[in-house]
Amino acid sequence: MSALCYQDIAEAAGRIRLLVHKTPVFTSGSINTILGAGIYFKCENFQKVGAFKFRGATNAVLGLDNVSKRKGVATHSSGNHAAALALAASMHMIPSYIVMPENAPEIKKRAVAGYGAKIYFCKPTLEAREQTLEQVVNKTGAVFIHPYDNDKVIAGQGTAALELLDQIPAPDIVIAPVGGGGLLSGTAITVKHLSPSTKIFGAEPAGADDAARSFYSGKLVPSVNPVTIADGLLTSLSERTFSIIRKNVDEILTAREETIIHAMRMIWERMKIIVEPSAAVPLAVVMEHTENFRNKTVAMILSGGNADLDHLPF
Amino acid sequence: MSALCYQDIAEAAGRIRLLVHKTPVFTSGSINTILGAGIYFKCENFQKVGAFKFRGATNAVLGLDNVSKRKGVATHSSGNHAAALALAASMHMIPSYIVMPENAPEIKKRAVAGYGAKIYFCKPTLEAREQTLEQVVNKTGAVFIHPYDNDKVIAGQGTAALELLDQIPAPDIVIAPVGGGGLLSGTAITVKHLSPSTKIFGAEPAGADDAARSFYSGKLVPSVNPVTIADGLLTSLSERTFSIIRKNVDEILTAREETIIHAMRMIWERMKIIVEPSAAVPLAVVMEHTENFRNKTVAMILSGGNADLDHLPF
Repeated sequence: MSALCYQDIAEAAGRIRLLVHKTPVFTSGSINTILGAGIYFKCENFQKVGAFKFRGATNAVLGLDNVSKRKGVATHSSGNHAAALALAASMHMIPSYIVMPENAPEIKKRAVAGYGAKIYFCKPTLEAREQTLEQVVNKTGAVFIHPYDNDKVIAGQGTAALELLDQIPAPDIVIAPVGGGGLLSGTAITVKHLSPSTKIFGAEPAGADDAARSFYSGKLVPSVNPVTIADGLLTSLSERTFSIIRKNVDEILTAREETIIHAMRMIWERMKIIVEPSAAVPLAVVMEHTENFRNKTVAMILSGGNADLDHLPF
Repeated sequence: MSALCYQDIAEAAGRIRLLVHKTPVFTSGSINTILGAGIYFKCENFQKVGAFKFRGATNAVLGLDNVSKRKGVATHSSGNHAAALALAASMHMIPSYIVMPENAPEIKKRAVAGYGAKIYFCKPTLEAREQTLEQVVNKTGAVFIHPYDNDKVIAGQGTAALELLDQIPAPDIVIAPVGGGGLLSGTAITVKHLSPSTKIFGAEPAGADDAARSFYSGKLVPSVNPVTIADGLLTSLSERTFSIIRKNVDEILTAREETIIHAMRMIWERMKIIVEPSAAVPLAVVMEHTENFRNKTVAMILSGGNADLDHLPF
């Protein structure tokens, strides 16, 4: 399905290096004491557009040939990938076309428009999004950049883990949240290559546990009616990400909604940084499965910081 | 009034170095674009107990003689100084006694208790606080550590600016918020010594502008019925801090409540970090007086991150 390997991620890192932030790694004495582990947080909430998605989008945009760059890029997304693709494109004077559901949060619409994208609104169904996107691609000739079912995107996302292992070498465990699986796939390939003894865990909301069910059944189970506050993790794996995850990930653990909210608040209160609900899922997994993590060095990716300040869950 | 000089601050820095966090300096491309200046934020919201106050409290505790260390330290405060003194004391096995108004926020009570302090509650008036403190000091023999009218405390607070000038050498302007004046005093002495060409500004809420009125009238005006969301900046200058500020500070500028709230939200949204209202006052001052800052390199101290997540002002 995908021949993506560590070399692609190392190349992506070189390609995007001057365009992305090298985000810091934070740790909290009080959280470590509470959970009995040494936890390191890779702060991709400080990445441009407030999420790791900017890495993959930038790598995908830079990988286009010159004809495609003139025609532009397109995607459907209500979330961080849309903003990331819009900014990555605008930084290279490339047109971008974003299909968004009409009920997307105002703040996301404004962010995407602010980065200079042309927005097409559609009904909030996957079918309407795909149809509208097809029309946009047909009309403009833009290249569809899928949020995760794309080797260039996955390679870009893997560069966060590459930096992380430079900052925290050979942790016992690395955890990344899993929605469509782009971040987890890139992370897993990177970590397996650079630190083969490190275990790689996916973290998923129990209310959207299609990746866990796919992983443990060996068959791709689509995400049907997921219910979770972690709005970045609603999507299903693709065959591409599923095959990478099966091969490289050790476990996928889930956390309940109340634990996700608790973890999110703990990060805000103890570390004074803003993370969105999806980014708190790895810490929530540690809170619900403490026995797996006790006395371990655990590095996790805080995937994004685009929380809606007008609608906090706590 | 006070013979405090740069040497005291340099000594404090050496003394507390291994006990405090060297906090990072952040910058935000989007905030710089909006305000037309290069703004650098010294993130004391990431300091232990979530505020710069830990620097001064630690320096004061370490400066005690052995007899005093056995008897302990005391203060009256509903805010960050109480938590800072409690933690600084407990790290050296020194007893601490904190007088708090009974209506102090639960989160602050829990924080102070969590650091092992003995808390005495009193009515929420300055008179009750001072009376209760006197009783506690008489009973225990503890040393009163004033939140700002104390040279050791001021010297400790000045170490934030010392680090800052190492991180951002010779900015055009340094801004610190001013309440009782401890942070601004320590900052001003440090900056005047290390970078004489840098201008030093105090930032104050318009609803608690006693420092500005004192500064421009040349007479210490006490803070009477201050009204501001910036709850760390309600107090009056002391003769000690006033004399230091008159000698070393270039200007004190004020900002309105709505600008403080706007600045606070801008820091949360654009930088993904949590600051309390008092910490947003310097940015609010830049927003209200843009002409003073345009095209300048401006370094400001984000004084603390202990915002009440259950009662956000936006």
